[in-house]
Amino acid sequence: MVILKSHKVHGGTLSYCRHASEATGTPMTFSIFIPAGEGPFPLLVWLSGLTCTEDNFTTKAGAYGAAAAAGLAIVAPDTSPRGQGVADDLAYDLGQGAGFYVDATQEPWAKHFQMESYITGDLLAVVGQDFPVDLARVGISGHSMGGHGALTLALRHSNLFRSVSAFAPICSPSRCDWGRKAFTAYLGAHETAWMPHDACVLIEAGAAKFDDILVDQGTGDDFLESQLKPELLAAACKAAGQTLTLRMQPGYDHSYFFMTSFIADHVAWHAARL
Amino acid sequence: MVILKSHKVHGGTLSYCRHASEATGTPMTFSIFIPAGEGPFPLLVWLSGLTCTEDNFTTKAGAYGAAAAAGLAIVAPDTSPRGQGVADDLAYDLGQGAGFYVDATQEPWAKHFQMESYITGDLLAVVGQDFPVDLARVGISGHSMGGHGALTLALRHSNLFRSVSAFAPICSPSRCDWGRKAFTAYLGAHETAWMPHDACVLIEAGAAKFDDILVDQGTGDDFLESQLKPELLAAACKAAGQTLTLRMQPGYDHSYFFMTSFIADHVAWHAARL
Repeated sequence: MVILKSHKVHGGTLSYCRHASEATGTPMTFSIFIPAGEGPFPLLVWLSGLTCTEDNFTTKAGAYGAAAAAGLAIVAPDTSPRGQGVADDLAYDLGQGAGFYVDATQEPWAKHFQMESYITGDLLAVVGQDFPVDLARVGISGHSMGGHGALTLALRHSNLFRSVSAFAPICSPSRCDWGRKAFTAYLGAHETAWMPHDACVLIEAGAAKFDDILVDQGTGDDFLESQLKPELLAAACKAAGQTLTLRMQPGYDHSYFFMTSFIADHVAWHAARL
Repeated sequence: MVILKSHKVHGGTLSYCRHASEATGTPMTFSIFIPAGEGPFPLLVWLSGLTCTEDNFTTKAGAYGAAAAAGLAIVAPDTSPRGQGVADDLAYDLGQGAGFYVDATQEPWAKHFQMESYITGDLLAVVGQDFPVDLARVGISGHSMGGHGALTLALRHSNLFRSVSAFAPICSPSRCDWGRKAFTAYLGAHETAWMPHDACVLIEAGAAKFDDILVDQGTGDDFLESQLKPELLAAACKAAGQTLTLRMQPGYDHSYFFMTSFIADHVAWHAARL
């Protein structure tokens, strides 16, 4: 692992890093905030949305003041493998920048697009090895595609993640265009292969796995009805007895201006559970 | 004036705007945050540094949570006129993105580079006309080149600005390469024309104009010794009896990670004076 650059922020250290991932077979980049002090610190994994790299959350979310106050480390990985030799698509919602946090089984994606294995394996391993974080106290959150990633990875790996929240998540990718397009490409045309990566299906199929799930959703979000569908998540949680705190935030849109308005709540929420 | 886009943030409204400036003879862009509620609100003018547009502060500073809490509006203008027909230079520190907040007297700059008149005239006028702000309660702050702008505009127009602070300001542009290059281009080779735009010279030449000036400067800033020189500002303030709160912040660099760490202090500091 190489630290590409570091900045002091809110008394802690924000580092941009690169490391080789076995899962993706590529170099991967992430940012990590470590608060001041000795540690080990509980860790929040932040998964970003379509088109993002690790930089969007890092520069725009304004999360580190709250994280410093709570003594919480935050790691923000890139959203896909990248580079020459990595498959891509001209559309913004497929390929590089749009990994959807699944392990692709279909060509040309399967060779490098192994984002579930990357996040739950290589990323946590390198962070646990090189930074003062406590891998027994890890939460996960994210935005949009990354909200889908946070929900599904938390539900599929509840041994790794103790708390989960999301901003404007794609709640049921098998029932919206973004998700159907990506799952068809990465997982194939048979929808049975999609179901283990649909948060609503996972919740309906299993016992409640978390004491609560926090979701913030702006009512002014252009993607609310067509892609995000929090009502499906609410219904799934109700059916399964999974407590959900779904906050419909009036007038907020899909941007980082929405996230920065409520990120401190999420940081405190995770810190209280870690 | 046209509102190009708006976002709800921290309960208030952030708008990106464009308007025609008589001073620059070009369209100019700015962002403005208006808190929730009725107003009129006191206003903080934020001046950005080299290479920035209005977007850098708007997306990266994380200022709006504190501004919402304090009931403070914040306007962030672009750093220069732009566009075809506007003079420019290949270097990052001259021309578009590097207006230095002076009214240029030299060609090819004089036609459009009238940033002092723009900020103190057209910008405040349009903001006062179209938004619920109180132009009798205006403070000014900025970063680097914008810190120079905040100090000099406040000192030269103390009738307009009631409070002034800065992050890592170019304290004495006549005594550093960035300033000498820009002032030579915009104001000509005769240094006597520069002196009314050098904060240290202005402070030494006049009576104390503000109850206090707040300056934060990171000790890990790569430009500290070569360009910023806060020791010159401290000496000028001491000589003139101008109270200065100069905070040397250990380990912080020249980036927005530094500013976001202390922006809430500056917002509260201005709000207390407005």
